[in-house]
Amino acid sequence: MPNTQTTTERAAVEQFARDYFDHLAPYVRLESVSAQHRGIQDTADWLQQTFRELGASYATQWNEPGGNPAVFAQFKGASDHTILFYNHYDVQPPEPLAEWHSEPFEPTFLDDGTVRARGIGDDKGELMCRLTAVRYLQDHGGLPCNLKFVVEGEEEVGSGHFDDYVAHHADDLAADVCVWEGGSKNEQEHFTVTGGVKGILAFDLSVRTADVDLHSSLGAYVDNAAWRLIDALHSLRTPERRLAVDGYYDLVETMSAGTRAAVDRMDFDADGLRERAGLRQPFLRDDPKLASVNEPSLTVNGFESGYTGDGVKTVIPREAHAKLDCRLAQGQTPQACFDLIRAQLDRNGFRDVEMTFQLGEDPFRSDLDDPYFAAATDVAKAVYGTDNVRVVPNSAGGGPQAPVAATLGLPIVSVGCGYYGSGAHAPNESLRVRDYQQGAWYMVELMRRMGAK
Amino acid sequence: MPNTQTTTERAAVEQFARDYFDHLAPYVRLESVSAQHRGIQDTADWLQQTFRELGASYATQWNEPGGNPAVFAQFKGASDHTILFYNHYDVQPPEPLAEWHSEPFEPTFLDDGTVRARGIGDDKGELMCRLTAVRYLQDHGGLPCNLKFVVEGEEEVGSGHFDDYVAHHADDLAADVCVWEGGSKNEQEHFTVTGGVKGILAFDLSVRTADVDLHSSLGAYVDNAAWRLIDALHSLRTPERRLAVDGYYDLVETMSAGTRAAVDRMDFDADGLRERAGLRQPFLRDDPKLASVNEPSLTVNGFESGYTGDGVKTVIPREAHAKLDCRLAQGQTPQACFDLIRAQLDRNGFRDVEMTFQLGEDPFRSDLDDPYFAAATDVAKAVYGTDNVRVVPNSAGGGPQAPVAATLGLPIVSVGCGYYGSGAHAPNESLRVRDYQQGAWYMVELMRRMGAK
Repeated sequence: MPNTQTTTERAAVEQFARDYFDHLAPYVRLESVSAQHRGIQDTADWLQQTFRELGASYATQWNEPGGNPAVFAQFKGASDHTILFYNHYDVQPPEPLAEWHSEPFEPTFLDDGTVRARGIGDDKGELMCRLTAVRYLQDHGGLPCNLKFVVEGEEEVGSGHFDDYVAHHADDLAADVCVWEGGSKNEQEHFTVTGGVKGILAFDLSVRTADVDLHSSLGAYVDNAAWRLIDALHSLRTPERRLAVDGYYDLVETMSAGTRAAVDRMDFDADGLRERAGLRQPFLRDDPKLASVNEPSLTVNGFESGYTGDGVKTVIPREAHAKLDCRLAQGQTPQACFDLIRAQLDRNGFRDVEMTFQLGEDPFRSDLDDPYFAAATDVAKAVYGTDNVRVVPNSAGGGPQAPVAATLGLPIVSVGCGYYGSGAHAPNESLRVRDYQQGAWYMVELMRRMGAK
Repeated sequence: MPNTQTTTERAAVEQFARDYFDHLAPYVRLESVSAQHRGIQDTADWLQQTFRELGASYATQWNEPGGNPAVFAQFKGASDHTILFYNHYDVQPPEPLAEWHSEPFEPTFLDDGTVRARGIGDDKGELMCRLTAVRYLQDHGGLPCNLKFVVEGEEEVGSGHFDDYVAHHADDLAADVCVWEGGSKNEQEHFTVTGGVKGILAFDLSVRTADVDLHSSLGAYVDNAAWRLIDALHSLRTPERRLAVDGYYDLVETMSAGTRAAVDRMDFDADGLRERAGLRQPFLRDDPKLASVNEPSLTVNGFESGYTGDGVKTVIPREAHAKLDCRLAQGQTPQACFDLIRAQLDRNGFRDVEMTFQLGEDPFRSDLDDPYFAAATDVAKAVYGTDNVRVVPNSAGGGPQAPVAATLGLPIVSVGCGYYGSGAHAPNESLRVRDYQQGAWYMVELMRRMGAK
């Protein structure tokens, strides 16, 4: 039961968040579309200047490894503890413009309690929450601990230089905990605290069976590139549609009992997903939550061979191409998984199928018992209500957390102020104002709790 | 051993063929490109007029079932026997024009003994050979039997109306034998006499697993349209890469001993094919000749699903599409095979995979012991040399022979004057002048022999 003083302060912070939004709104108006190479430098300049105005002891732009600048800022606080915040300032293109109900880069408050703008959910609103907490704390006795902010400008185009920035500036980034972006309330209105990411391996498969496309009248005796790739792919899955790759599952780390229990407490709205996505087939696994957190996947992202236009073309395609991604469970690495799949294809008789590495990211999962991670959960329970908080040991998606954690040696916790309907990357992206206000209070309390460790 | 009189006449006919070529050359200059809707009516008019000049008792254009007109002509001869000749007057587009070494529609005689032009091989030269024989016989005592010619104008775009023409004009077309187009000398310089075609069934497969493409982070538990179609397709083949379709091979008629013997005598240049096409894989069958004549095939002509551009898109495709064709052995029909494959997909658990009929043609094979068929072979041996003739019971390809044979009740024999290097459909299409001259003599002798039956 919160005491009266806390209740009063919470109301004040939430009101301040709404008032201070207008001060930060220029951040949303800056059209920092990395894919379209526009607005980047202006936005980095605005951020650097804003960090200075907030009292940063140091605020700069990094650009030595190339790409869009990353903005770094550092604040001194009362205790020795240091929190590193990760966010990104670039946004997705606003197109298709015709589908927007208001100007994409003008934050627009609606009667339904949301504010709409490109990037408001992903991820400018989350950083604004954090800056609001900094301003409030600076104006009310100072920061409880040291804060660092790193805000990159290439997240929407693959974070191509972020690992390099981390490696070059490991000393600057040193901290006790990293508070990542990307938290939200899920469909059950439960606030999620996420401890990591799955890894990812993406690769292409290509096979060529001839120099030329042949007439299909030869099909009774001449092999076919499409068939060959179909056979090769099919050989990589068991009848249960798991990976039929020797040694693949041996790499997966066993979950601790605590992590397994957190998985069981996760929300999963199977019927909602089935309905929203119009799924026609049963789930591949009896326990989708467990699969989401800890099972590898092998997804065909695309397949192309031969003639795919209208009508009939009686051709034997000479080549076939597929694009795949593997979501990696904790313990797996992209290169190890790539090598195992390659070896399996060879054993299955498909040495002629070329396999090309496209990208890889290691998985990462924080120790859920780490005191900083526990602090994020405890504060969430205090702010959102004990029953309204769910710990996700790691998300089903990826992200460049592993090199940060490995280089800096710290736990990572993803929390934020989005909601299930934010529509990141889509037209009419939005945040709920109430979530934004609660998020500011959560950040104030989180800085205090982590700073008191 | 040919007698002196025959030798003298043969030389005369071969000389006449070369001289008369220039008279017929306007046929080649007419740019009858059906795919580009040009030159069609002019060419049909030229043919009708030419048949009249050659002494046809009746020459007309049919157009009542629609499409490009078919030219029909009829000549009266000494005996009651009637030969029906099938050819087509439309040609493939000449593009890419830059690859031609001379004007595509100007027949150009080269030092290597060939004449080059679009359509000279496929199929104007063959009809010109036949018209040359008619002119020669008319000028030397008259035709030995009745002749009928049907020349269609849509062969290069799928013969969409030809079956209808045959059905509408079955009485006009009545004959004892049909001499089809499309014969040639093969790589071994052996003249081929072909007795039929394989059938064909073309169909599309489509599957949809969701209403929307989903993020591949869900891939550990959400099914994938590309995988589903891969699995469905894979289920249709045995490990030996035959069709795994119940009842499919039961439809195939057993070959007679004579037909089987003809298959064994066929030429097959495995090494040449492997080298020319750059084949990387072994043949699917130990006996490609047998497979070519009498084994069904299942060819993936195309496969398309999801993202196939550059780089990575981490998507679970909601739909997947494949295009396939089946070459059908004697005894199989497109609808029966379609139904068996559909039933097998259902049994294999793929009721959700949609199967759409695209086109079908029945197979057809003449009785190789039929006296008219035997006459074509005997005359070939006399003209080209006994060791230089090969009987192909049916080609590996298709064609609208079955409805002709079924409607008119006659054997069909394919003979012509092309060669393995004719380059049908390609730039610099050519005929060898010597083959053309021999072909005219073969036609003179064939008309005489068939007329004397």
